[in-house]
This record gives sequence, C-alpha cells and structure tokens, in this order.
Amino acid sequence: MVVSLRLPSLSSLLSPASPFTFSRRALGISLRQQRPFRLPLLAPRFSVRSSSTGTEIHVDNSKNRVPEGAITPRSQDFNAWYLDIIANAELADYGPVRGTMVIRPYGYAIWEAIQEYLNVKFKETGHENMYFPQFIPYSFIEKEASHVEGFSPELALVTIGGGKELEEKLVVRPTSETIVNHMFTQWIHSHRDLPLMINQWANVTRWEMRTKPFVRTLEFLWQEGHTAHASPEEAEKEAIQMIDIYTKFAYEQAAIPVIAGRKSKMETFAGADKTYTIEAMMGDRKALQAGTSHNLGQNFSRAFGTQFTDENGQRQHVWQTSWAISTRFVGGIIMTHGDDGGLMLPPRLAPIQVVIIPIWKKEGVKAEVLNAAASVEVNLRTAGIKVKLDNSEQRTPGWKFNFWEMKGVPLRIEIGPKDVANQSVVISRRDIPGKQGKVFGISMEPSILEAYVKDTLDEIQSSLLEQAKTFRDSNVVDVSSYNELKEAISQGKWARGPWSASDKDELKVKEETGATIRCFPFEQTPGPKTCLMTGNAAEEVAIFAKSY
Amino acid sequence: MVVSLRLPSLSSLLSPASPFTFSRRALGISLRQQRPFRLPLLAPRFSVRSSSTGTEIHVDNSKNRVPEGAITPRSQDFNAWYLDIIANAELADYGPVRGTMVIRPYGYAIWEAIQEYLNVKFKETGHENMYFPQFIPYSFIEKEASHVEGFSPELALVTIGGGKELEEKLVVRPTSETIVNHMFTQWIHSHRDLPLMINQWANVTRWEMRTKPFVRTLEFLWQEGHTAHASPEEAEKEAIQMIDIYTKFAYEQAAIPVIAGRKSKMETFAGADKTYTIEAMMGDRKALQAGTSHNLGQNFSRAFGTQFTDENGQRQHVWQTSWAISTRFVGGIIMTHGDDGGLMLPPRLAPIQVVIIPIWKKEGVKAEVLNAAASVEVNLRTAGIKVKLDNSEQRTPGWKFNFWEMKGVPLRIEIGPKDVANQSVVISRRDIPGKQGKVFGISMEPSILEAYVKDTLDEIQSSLLEQAKTFRDSNVVDVSSYNELKEAISQGKWARGPWSASDKDELKVKEETGATIRCFPFEQTPGPKTCLMTGNAAEEVAIFAKSY
Repeated sequence: MVVSLRLPSLSSLLSPASPFTFSRRALGISLRQQRPFRLPLLAPRFSVRSSSTGTEIHVDNSKNRVPEGAITPRSQDFNAWYLDIIANAELADYGPVRGTMVIRPYGYAIWEAIQEYLNVKFKETGHENMYFPQFIPYSFIEKEASHVEGFSPELALVTIGGGKELEEKLVVRPTSETIVNHMFTQWIHSHRDLPLMINQWANVTRWEMRTKPFVRTLEFLWQEGHTAHASPEEAEKEAIQMIDIYTKFAYEQAAIPVIAGRKSKMETFAGADKTYTIEAMMGDRKALQAGTSHNLGQNFSRAFGTQFTDENGQRQHVWQTSWAISTRFVGGIIMTHGDDGGLMLPPRLAPIQVVIIPIWKKEGVKAEVLNAAASVEVNLRTAGIKVKLDNSEQRTPGWKFNFWEMKGVPLRIEIGPKDVANQSVVISRRDIPGKQGKVFGISMEPSILEAYVKDTLDEIQSSLLEQAKTFRDSNVVDVSSYNELKEAISQGKWARGPWSASDKDELKVKEETGATIRCFPFEQTPGPKTCLMTGNAAEEVAIFAKSY
Repeated sequence: MVVSLRLPSLSSLLSPASPFTFSRRALGISLRQQRPFRLPLLAPRFSVRSSSTGTEIHVDNSKNRVPEGAITPRSQDFNAWYLDIIANAELADYGPVRGTMVIRPYGYAIWEAIQEYLNVKFKETGHENMYFPQFIPYSFIEKEASHVEGFSPELALVTIGGGKELEEKLVVRPTSETIVNHMFTQWIHSHRDLPLMINQWANVTRWEMRTKPFVRTLEFLWQEGHTAHASPEEAEKEAIQMIDIYTKFAYEQAAIPVIAGRKSKMETFAGADKTYTIEAMMGDRKALQAGTSHNLGQNFSRAFGTQFTDENGQRQHVWQTSWAISTRFVGGIIMTHGDDGGLMLPPRLAPIQVVIIPIWKKEGVKAEVLNAAASVEVNLRTAGIKVKLDNSEQRTPGWKFNFWEMKGVPLRIEIGPKDVANQSVVISRRDIPGKQGKVFGISMEPSILEAYVKDTLDEIQSSLLEQAKTFRDSNVVDVSSYNELKEAISQGKWARGPWSASDKDELKVKEETGATIRCFPFEQTPGPKTCLMTGNAAEEVAIFAKSY
C-alpha cells in the first residue's frame, strides 16, 4: 500500500489548470526584469507619513523605482495571483527539471517554522526521528499488487547505477510504507518491542503531470510518521492523536481553521482502514487536503509479514499508522491569508515578525535615526522576536513598505527623526490596511515596546484565524437535497449535508459537480438525519467541495 | 566540477576491506538473535555494588540473560569492532539496496546534535537554508567535461518517470554545484546581490562500490554550503571561515582533534582552486577526511556563466565556495572515542548524557527507589541535561550497566535503597572504567547534583579531547627522509615532513606506501626546511597517512 500518503490525485481531474500550471512567465524572470507594481493597486496601501515621504538622499538612481514585479489581483485570477506571490516574495523558483521547485530561503524559513513546531510535538508524543534510504527495490512496490497499478504512473525509476544497468529497477521513494515494513520485520519480535513509533523528515518524488509550486511538485519535502502497535485500539488512538496534532497546528500556528474528519470509503487510501484528514478552505474556496493520518490496520503487516509474539506467546501481525504533512502546507498558508498586497503570514510561522524601517531626510539626523532603529532591533531580538532592520539605502521607505507588506511581515515599525525626539515609534499592522492599522507614539522604552509588539502579534494571530473562520463559515452551506448541493457547489461553496448513499452516488456527485466528499467532519450535530441523495436515514453529515 | 565535495575516492585503493565491507552478519541479525556479550571481556566493567547485584524480583525470565550481541575487541579487528558497535548500539542497519543504510533513532540523534550546532553557526555567519531539487539534468553534469569522466562511474540515473522513458536522463544529486550555478545565474545580477550565501541539508547519492556504514554509503545525508562573492579575497575568506567552523566544531563538540590544512594539488578536487580539509585520526590510526571547504574560484561561474555587474558597470564572473560535512562524521566519532565496551560519546553530542538506573531488591523499597529516581530525572531534565531513566523491569541492573555503557552514555547514576536513605546517588563515568570512575555519596539535592553532573560532563568532554590529542600526537612522527616516512607509515603512523616534491613523487609515495598527503597543516613551524624526498628547499611540512 504505497499510495497511502498520496496527496489527492483526484484534483487533477478537477483543476482548471493547464498541464503546466507552473507559469514560467511569473517565476522564470527575476524581480529586476519585471514590470513595476501597478500603482493604482498599491497606492492605497502606501501610507507614508508626510514627514518622511519620498526621500532621495545618498542613494543611487535605482531607489526611485517602485517595487518591481506585479502581483495580479487575487479577485482577477487566483492562480496568477498565487504564482506572482511565490515569485515576488521569493518563496520558490522553478528547478531545471519540469515540475521541480527550488525552495528559496524565505519559503524554506516558513517550512523550518513548521518543522520546529511539529518536531517538538512528535517527540513529546514519543516518536523518534530516523532515516530510511530513498531507493526502494521495485519488487517491494509490487508486493502490493492492488496498489502498484494505481501508483506506478507516478514513479521515478533509477535503472542505471555506477555506469551499469541495474538488475532490479529502484523506485525513488514516493512514500516509505514498504521499506519501513521491510525494516520493521527485523526490529519487531515481541510485544515488548511495541509500540514502535518513528518519523522521518525527507524528500519524496512523485511523477505528477500537473504541478503547481508547493501544492503539487515532482519532488517535495515532508515528514512521514510510521508506527506499529500491539492492538487495533492503540493504532486507532495513534491515528487520531496525530490528526489532532495537525489540527491544533493548523489552528494555532498557521491560523488555518481546517475541518478535521474521516475520509469516505472511496477517498480512503487503498490499504488504509481509515484515513483522517484536515481540509482547509483556500481563498478561492477550493479545499486543500493539508494533512492526513491513516489507520493502516494490518494491511501492510500482512503483506510484509510484520509480526510480534504477544503476551500469550501467540504470533500476531502488528497494527499500523502513517501520517504526513508536506511543503504543500506552505501553499495552504499563502492561499488562506494572502491578499492583493501579497503574502500575509501568521506571526507564529513568520520568518520575520517585525520589520524596522528607519526614515530620514536630512543627513544630519541619519545617525540618530539609525542608532535608534538599531537599538530597537536589539531590544526586540533579545525579547525573542524575529526582527529585521531594513537600513539599506538602495530603496525609499515607500518601496520598503510595499516590499515587506508583499513579503507578509506581520508588523512594521517606522522610526523617523520626530520619533527619535519623542522616543517613540510608529507601528503598522499588515492585516489592517492603511491608517486603521497604524498606531503612532508607541514608546521606545524596551519593556513597553516589547509588550506592545508581543500583544499585537498575538492579536494578529487571532485575527487571521477569526477572519479565515468567518470566511470559511460564510462559504459552507448546509444542504438537504442534491439540488441544494449542486447549487452550493456551482456557487463555489462547500456543501455540508447528511450522507449515507452509495459509492456510485458519490461518484455521480463528482462527475456532475466536480466536488468530492472532503470528509465526514468529527464535529457532528446529534439527532436523526436524512441522506440528501437517497432520503434514507443517515448517521453523519459529509462535506463536499472542489479541491486542489 | 561536480566532484568537488566528494569524499576521497582514493581510499578505495587503500582499504583492505572486501568489496562488501558492510557485514550482514554483524548488522542483519537483531540483538535478540545474537550471542551474548563475552563475559570475560565485560566482567571488569561490570561493577555493581554488593548491596544491589543480580536482583531477580518481579521480572520475567528474560532478565537473567546477559546483554545480547558480542562486540569484537577493538584491538583484534577494528573493522569488525566498528560494525559490531553500529549493530549493537542500534546506530544503523542495512537498507534493502546494497550499500544503503537505515539510520536508526540513536544514530540519527547524534546527527541531529551535529545539525543543531552547525545550523546555528551557519546562520550566525550569514548563511540561509534553502532546498534545491535532487534531480539534475544529465547535460548539466556534462558541462564540466573534464569532470564527468571521473564522476560518471558514481552516478545513479533516473531514466523512467511516470511510466515513460525520459528524453534526458536525470542524475540523482551527488552534489549540487551544477544546479546551484544554474539557479545563481537567475538570482545574481549586480554586485548588490552578492555575497549570496546559502546552505542546504539534503540527501546525496553516489554509487560507491565499497561501502561502510556512515563512512561511505550509497546515499548519505549532509549539508552543502554554496556561496558566491564579488572578489577572490572574499571567497578565500569564506572558505577559510567555514573550515574554521568545522575545526571548532570537531574540537569543541565532537572532541576530535582534527588537523586542519590545505590539500595538495593532486588531492584538491578538480574544479577547486584550493581545498581545505579537516583530517581526523581514527582509533586504527587511519585518517578520516571529516569535512572540506573549497575555494572554487571562477571555475563553475565560467562554466555556467554566473556573472554580476560590478560597481564600475563591468560584467564579471562570481568567485565561489562550497563546503560540506556529512553523516560520515558519525563514523568519525565512533572510531575516535569507542573502546572494547562499545561506543563512547562526547557529552555535547550525546543523545543521552546521563542514564539513571534504579536498583532495588525488596519489593518494599521499590516505590521509594523509583520515586527518588524519577525525581532526580525531573531535576536534571529541568536543568537542561539530556537524561534517561531506565526503570524497565525486564533487565537486571548489571545488564543495564553494560547496555548503556555500550551505547556510550557519558554518565550513569545509580540509586538504591541506601542511597535514598542517605539522599545521595552513585555516579559512574563512561570514560573511566571500573571503580576509578565511580563516585559514591553525591547529594541528591538538585542544585548540588546538577552542578556535579554538569561539571563532570564538562570534564569528560575535555578528557575525551585530551585523550584523543595524546593518541594523535603519539602517532604523528616527524620525518626528514623518505625512508623515515616509509618506516612511520609501515608502523601505521602518520608522517609529517617538509615537502616540495612533484606530483609524480606524491604518486610514488602513494603507490609504495599506501599513504597520501592528507594536508599541509595550517600549523607550521617557521624556519628553513628541506624536502624529505628531494632535498630541495621546502616551504611547508605535509602530513602523510593511510586513510578511509
């Protein structure tokens, strides 16, 4: 069952994108070669104080240019907007091989923030990191005959090694269940060896035809957890624990109000008894499967003979789970919070939480402004805040405002000569445009400023989550008939309704509306329900949506 | 110049190992299936206090067994000893594909400790992490015609993707200079884009014929730094800075007294202007190249056209460096500090710095002993010490003593009923065998115990370095003639002597003695020198040794 951790392949049927959605125009050309930001679009966000606008002292000519690179308005073309952000915020670039992605430092730093949080949670819950080889004998994949059929179209195969044709082709790891089980059989003997709970941070390769940076690339980075247990109850508890950790991460760190639930039988990965998922609503209201946790039952352990001797001396197959979150999540953050100004990062995952922009006109005040800015930088950094001082003289303050807004930095601190005189600073929030998000006269006194910044970052974190929740809730429609479902989907919304119909009916919904069951949410209202399709009694509501 | 970061391939000529040195016997069989530790060997290290030996209460029969798995004495067979440690300390295991390695949690945790330290140092010195795709078009490798010849024998090639034969074969990253330069040409335009200083943590693949866990595997993990600069001086400064960071890491964290220096022209990687290296003396006195830093000059930038516009408006090729440390370093730690008892880890890189072993005989005292042990565990953990409480009842204390010694844990704390009564503990050092390394009656009072443990860990850290230095220095012989050199090498030692002879002479030394120039050490004594081979004047001494 090598496909158990696959990102949903159904989306390729649903995506309106061209076979090569990764637009070379948007990314292949460097910032410096692109056309300037559209001024009408950005002017309203360009709120420099009168005392400090348009300074042109001690810099070369390039500083007069407005920030390069245009960002397509989100409402105009969501996909172009997404690619523009990735290019202009320098999150990623195209690799030389079709569908591959170079993750640039700013994009990688977001991934590092994701790793830092999850890595601690995994260890707290008893998992250990390790590393499996990425080359898997082709015969391992074939052991799961029912799955190789669906999976082989996506394999990258090494056939030549050391200048010679290999006797057995090697699969470049698309997921590691097979090799993990091969090793587990050597490490697991008795019930005392259980539970065995491991995780690896690794690259994986899937020969995807329709790629999109972060969301679906030929090679991507992820973590894959693999556990083996002595009972089905333990495996189930583990699978639930891990989807809970992902859910908490999405809400609290990424400010993404995912809906957690169980996949339908059709959407459960083959080989898994149950698949749990977190589904996130993107800005275009398409669903993104942002993380999955599988209860694999004994499917893999039976295929590989992963057995243990239980307390009564009986040989049993282990019960297993696997779970993963990938660099796709970075795409989810962009598409949840970004706006026409660019990226908007939740403070807890932002590589830079606060950018400081010193502003001066006259040479005589430059030193005191720069000194004050540097001192604020040191104080905030000491307080554990991720801060950047942009004291370059290549660009105007206005250019810098736009640039760092486009990069999604949650807070901006401006310091000019008047601020130095008043021993105060001006603070602007990325999430509230214009004057409303701007506060003057915050004291530079370290303890006051630090407290203000920390509180405001917390407020932004909460506010982003609340905004996303409001957006989500206003776009989930409760439906009680197939017509209502079709209507909701045609409006681009998610439909939630009681469901107990057949796989065939589920397929019909997909074919007729483009929507799939994203999950049966854990959160269910009690009481009797009637299936929206058949009118029969239903146990649960399901959520239908178009998806990436 | 794709081979610039290669581990030295010369060693394959020198290694006495069979084509498949990775012995299945030693690693393929699990602990539980192996023969018991040889008691005569381990008995002297088995120093349990009389009040707490051999208890057999409330445990199943398996606890009577002595620790499983035999470790070949180091003096008897260094290679077998090394493989036994890797198997028994559960550092790594064989992957299903020849020459691949599964890094198990305990081995991976050592790598994580290496990563944690270096990652901070890289960021402090202005480098940013990012990620490049691992698939490189074959044509990139061919761009360096002079190097593809020497490198292609080690390439793994993907020829099938998504079920189809690829038009162009893809190389699975053996090192990333080519793809890095391909991307650098898109990011570097002006002198303002320089220096560009990045690093990636990644897996790399080299189709090695003679493999040995950690030291040389088909796939391994590493970091590779790549920088581009506006002047040759800057690139040289960077190359030196990075070898200095590696040197400091080796001394201060790994307690390995490497000798840092410059490679000879013959040993400089093709494409690099200069290669700096840190060379470590293993327990068998063979040299291990433990890290390298290359000044690449303009060799890659000319091949790929990586140019910038300088301050005068002129187009110039950038000056570059690359530098790497890999999971090979874990092998270096094992082979520097290990002894017949097994692994011996420097405290600063040890996944477990202190193991606590509660000891009780009578059921009546079990609770108080376990409570005291748990309380000591919490106190030490709170103090930032990596501590493990081994309170399992499957094994005797004696078994645990041997087991954790074999795993190289620097300090052991024993707590029995008498200790609880006295509110004290017994502490044993891994690096000082038997009674000499054991101290009784250390107070359990948190601040006292914490200070004692921290001081002792520091002492062990220093002591391991001192021991390794003494060993190294007693095995480096100053030679002034070729005969003296041959004599030193034949005794298994390193030879240090003035050298200004030709490449041909250098090759002759290699052919006749098996030794190569490891480096011209940075540390040189002043004054006139005479080449040991030719009798001509020499500027520097070189160090010759057999190597891995």
